[in-house]
Amino acid sequence: MLIARVVGSAVSTIKDANLRGLKLLVVQEATPADVVRGEPFVAADTIGAGEGELVLIVTGSAARCTDKTRNFPVDAAIIGILDSLEVGGEVAFRKH
Amino acid sequence: MLIARVVGSAVSTIKDANLRGLKLLVVQEATPADVVRGEPFVAADTIGAGEGELVLIVTGSAARCTDKTRNFPVDAAIIGILDSLEVGGEVAFRKH
Amino acid sequence: MLIARVVGSAVSTIKDANLRGLKLLVVQEATPADVVRGEPFVAADTIGAGEGELVLIVTGSAARCTDKTRNFPVDAAIIGILDSLEVGGEVAFRKH
Amino acid sequence: MLIARVVGSAVSTIKDANLRGLKLLVVQEATPADVVRGEPFVAADTIGAGEGELVLIVTGSAARCTDKTRNFPVDAAIIGILDSLEVGGEVAFRKH
Amino acid sequence: MLIARVVGSAVSTIKDANLRGLKLLVVQEATPADVVRGEPFVAADTIGAGEGELVLIVTGSAARCTDKTRNFPVDAAIIGILDSLEVGGEVAFRKH
Repeated sequence: MLIARVVGSAVSTIKDANLRGLKLLVVQEATPADVVRGEPFVAADTIGAGEGELVLIVTGSAARCTDKTRNFPVDAAIIGILDSLEVGGEVAFRKH
Repeated sequence: MLIARVVGSAVSTIKDANLRGLKLLVVQEATPADVVRGEPFVAADTIGAGEGELVLIVTGSAARCTDKTRNFPVDAAIIGILDSLEVGGEVAFRKH
Repeated sequence: MLIARVVGSAVSTIKDANLRGLKLLVVQEATPADVVRGEPFVAADTIGAGEGELVLIVTGSAARCTDKTRNFPVDAAIIGILDSLEVGGEVAFRKH
Repeated sequence: MLIARVVGSAVSTIKDANLRGLKLLVVQEATPADVVRGEPFVAADTIGAGEGELVLIVTGSAARCTDKTRNFPVDAAIIGILDSLEVGGEVAFRKH
Repeated sequence: MLIARVVGSAVSTIKDANLRGLKLLVVQEATPADVVRGEPFVAADTIGAGEGELVLIVTGSAARCTDKTRNFPVDAAIIGILDSLEVGGEVAFRKH
């Protein structure tokens, strides 16, 4: 699972019918200290994440293993909001 | 899902029989501000996208989760046309 | 799907029994203008491609969605021979 | 399978219901000599790995092929604790 | 399929029960001329490969499409031993 920050959102009217009602968020991979890195991409939100939050993202077929995305054409999904990350015995991130 | 721009099209006569009738477009990953980056590749169009449009692409097995591609040898599919992208509270892209 | 050029072939006697009879070609990703880039890898040929041809390759589980590869341990397959590619309104490649 | 070192842990309260009870560890790919490289990501622990241990990680759909993760939205799982690695006839790593 | 050289082996006692009896080899991607490149990773051996041999590796779900790995948590498998590789009309590799 990727550590990523929600940085925005996407709007698409003409899209696969199964995607209607799915919230599509723009995300960017982040370090455990919440520093964004890499390029933005779009993930389906399955848990009610909001902009600025640090989240867990699954990619590939795992993105379709949720009640909100099963069998849909989705290859990236937010499946958790991170409360905290600990690395090397230290708190790297804690949600405010 | 990748943000990508449709930059061209591909023609192939000798191909897997299941691909007949599928439109194959050349796409290039893009930033949320519609600047292309990365290398061109080919995606199956499932929604009627046109050259120059910013689209959403799924890769891997997700590309076969549409009515037009189910069980076909396809690993990238256009599944949405982007109307707008918002990043950091600002409009990064809006379709003309 | 990747745009790739067939640059050679592979011979393997000791291999998974299901691969017997499958032609294994060495391929290299290419630009739409047929300039090779990236590193060579091996793909199963499902359509009778020949050395020097520009082809379409699917990777991942899509490589098993053809009549010649179903359920076989294959993660890359040639599924089309490219006749032409158009990028930005210009012909980038046309087969001789 | 990736060689990786467990470097920390992740806590997420709001997450996909199927992930409850799964331990989520922060891992980092490592060389056979146990030097970390690459960026940290999160993997589901299926075998009781602890911080500092060198482990084997599967990514993609393989991460759901364990009794603890079947059908869950998981794309990376720790499936083995490494005792030793031999490279080029020499011991590159041995667990203390 | 990746061209890779077997460079070593991995030992893991605490691991997913389905992996018992599977030989885990350390491999490194290689050019068709048998020059290693990239970082070492671990692949399940399904055909009796030995150290120093140039092999074909499948990654992702293809790694589970062999009689020895079906449904196991494995994302990389050796499925062929290379006898020879020809690139650009020349022999790039021939097994001794």
